[in-house]
Amino acid sequence: MERPDKDLAFMLQYENIAWYEKGQVRILDRRVYPGEVSFVTCKSHQEVRNAITDMVTQSAGPYTAAAMGMALAAYECRNKGQKEQQDYLKEAAHTISHARPTTVERMKLITADCLKAAFEALESGVDASRAIVESTIERNNKRYNKIGIMAQYLVDNFPSEGRILTQCFGETIVGMMLKTARERGNDLKLFCAETRPYFQGARLTATVCHEMGFETTVITDNMPAVTMQEKKIDVFTSAADAICLDGHVINKVGTFQIAIAAKYFGIPYFVTGAPDKAHPVVDTITIEQRDPDFVLQAMGVRTACEGVKGYYPAFDITPPHLVSGVVTDTGIYSPFDLNSYYRRGAEGEY
Amino acid sequence: MERPDKDLAFMLQYENIAWYEKGQVRILDRRVYPGEVSFVTCKSHQEVRNAITDMVTQSAGPYTAAAMGMALAAYECRNKGQKEQQDYLKEAAHTISHARPTTVERMKLITADCLKAAFEALESGVDASRAIVESTIERNNKRYNKIGIMAQYLVDNFPSEGRILTQCFGETIVGMMLKTARERGNDLKLFCAETRPYFQGARLTATVCHEMGFETTVITDNMPAVTMQEKKIDVFTSAADAICLDGHVINKVGTFQIAIAAKYFGIPYFVTGAPDKAHPVVDTITIEQRDPDFVLQAMGVRTACEGVKGYYPAFDITPPHLVSGVVTDTGIYSPFDLNSYYRRGAEGEY
Repeated sequence: MERPDKDLAFMLQYENIAWYEKGQVRILDRRVYPGEVSFVTCKSHQEVRNAITDMVTQSAGPYTAAAMGMALAAYECRNKGQKEQQDYLKEAAHTISHARPTTVERMKLITADCLKAAFEALESGVDASRAIVESTIERNNKRYNKIGIMAQYLVDNFPSEGRILTQCFGETIVGMMLKTARERGNDLKLFCAETRPYFQGARLTATVCHEMGFETTVITDNMPAVTMQEKKIDVFTSAADAICLDGHVINKVGTFQIAIAAKYFGIPYFVTGAPDKAHPVVDTITIEQRDPDFVLQAMGVRTACEGVKGYYPAFDITPPHLVSGVVTDTGIYSPFDLNSYYRRGAEGEY
Repeated sequence: MERPDKDLAFMLQYENIAWYEKGQVRILDRRVYPGEVSFVTCKSHQEVRNAITDMVTQSAGPYTAAAMGMALAAYECRNKGQKEQQDYLKEAAHTISHARPTTVERMKLITADCLKAAFEALESGVDASRAIVESTIERNNKRYNKIGIMAQYLVDNFPSEGRILTQCFGETIVGMMLKTARERGNDLKLFCAETRPYFQGARLTATVCHEMGFETTVITDNMPAVTMQEKKIDVFTSAADAICLDGHVINKVGTFQIAIAAKYFGIPYFVTGAPDKAHPVVDTITIEQRDPDFVLQAMGVRTACEGVKGYYPAFDITPPHLVSGVVTDTGIYSPFDLNSYYRRGAEGEY
């Protein structure tokens, strides 16, 4: 099977994101990458769920990890009767899809795909784990191709010598955007906000940008405004954890603040991703509150004294009037016109 | 001599900031405080200069450290002839005042005070080091009293149950603001932006707020906007490294971005400090660029991979239209009317 991820950076290649093989799932530990290149090995689908909850992998990583967890669940119940296997897999799908509150809906679509592949395999008497892995590769290929199209639309909006500001880690779209820019000969300079408290920008996005051959500068999260001003940023772009049909963008905390600064400077903010049917309006969103103590440390070293509290909303919400365009696989939409995306027959992305 | 710093937090008390005694200067190392309470001992005025350059002490700390460095210089040359001592001290004043490019002008005022005290002492045949220390205590007392008045004006603008967002470490004004609020019975909740890359907000401001008895929450630098929204911030306040007479505020990088977000939400931004006569217009400002690699680590642990660049402007510039009021020792001024401060006979602050 031809795979579109072969000439992307190390951590964007399927087998490095999360991979099922011989009764275990191996997940690249993005909490320590690139300082360390190490993998978390999960021996049960519950361990995969825990790894997702504990943010071993982030951005699009959890969706591949979830599918691989389903392949592992199929392995776990391989010696049961068909009905028991089906029940076991349904239970596993529920467990895995609830790993993080903000992504339950999209996770359900993934695990439903896995259940479908597994049930068909059980009917035909073939290996259900293998069927899930193959359906995952197929879905990922389709997804990479869609995101490749999205990247074309995005890069259309970059100057040939553009200065691009990113937030957090956009996973596939970052790789596809850079691959597209490289193919077109665009000379991009990337500025990556480090994205506390996990430093995904400094650790993940910057590594991918550098590996893909572009000049890459990391800035701390208090520098986007001054960088826009002094470094003449042309475009701010981010992926999203969810794009509501009413144009609200849910993404890693900090996106909202950068979008406010971008508006102040008249710099366009393009968000990439398909609108999410499961979230017709922003009120359907639950913002995940993570362990507040985690903001009181950096790279494992405590910053604040005892007795001080932390606050850690994982995401924030950028209202549509701060969004210049929603870049999808069927073109760029106004954030106020996202129903058009589905009206024109697009499928969404997952 | 009555000292107004006695009931402030540990790190705001004179002898903990920087202190000359017996041929050496001891400076609280704020780079590691509060994780470690340790002091850097300087045995020459050049070592004091280096300590300031290396940010052992920050905010107002360097001004006291500079004066103590002058006391040490007076000790170093105590056995020379009077003219040689004067020349030696002038040279030391030049060395120390150029420790950091952004603060040269204000440093010159401090070292000029020290020279005056020392020269008078030399004329009268008394100990020049002691004279410099005494003049420093006198200047600091005067300064603390002025900042106490400033704090009254600032706290006048807080609700009795206010939620206050801070940036970086405002040193004396933070202590005086909290002392005033405590005396008035205001129930403040403090939210401190951690202030990368040195974490002055998380390490210093939060420690002072907590020691002074207020509920204190640290947020990462990508959270001010979401915190304004979700925690209903009433006021954003910061000190400044310089306030130009044209109303531009030079302060730790990130202030500009928070001020943009505050404007977006209609939250007032009060900057504390006297306008700086040495900077009539913003064009007179030199923004210090610090070692870019410093943003590629956090608390001493590397974040980004090799080959990635950093960018580290120490300060940014907030334009007057984002400033709600300049809180001085003679009242609150519009940022567009700062010449009035001197026209009404105020002395400035240093």
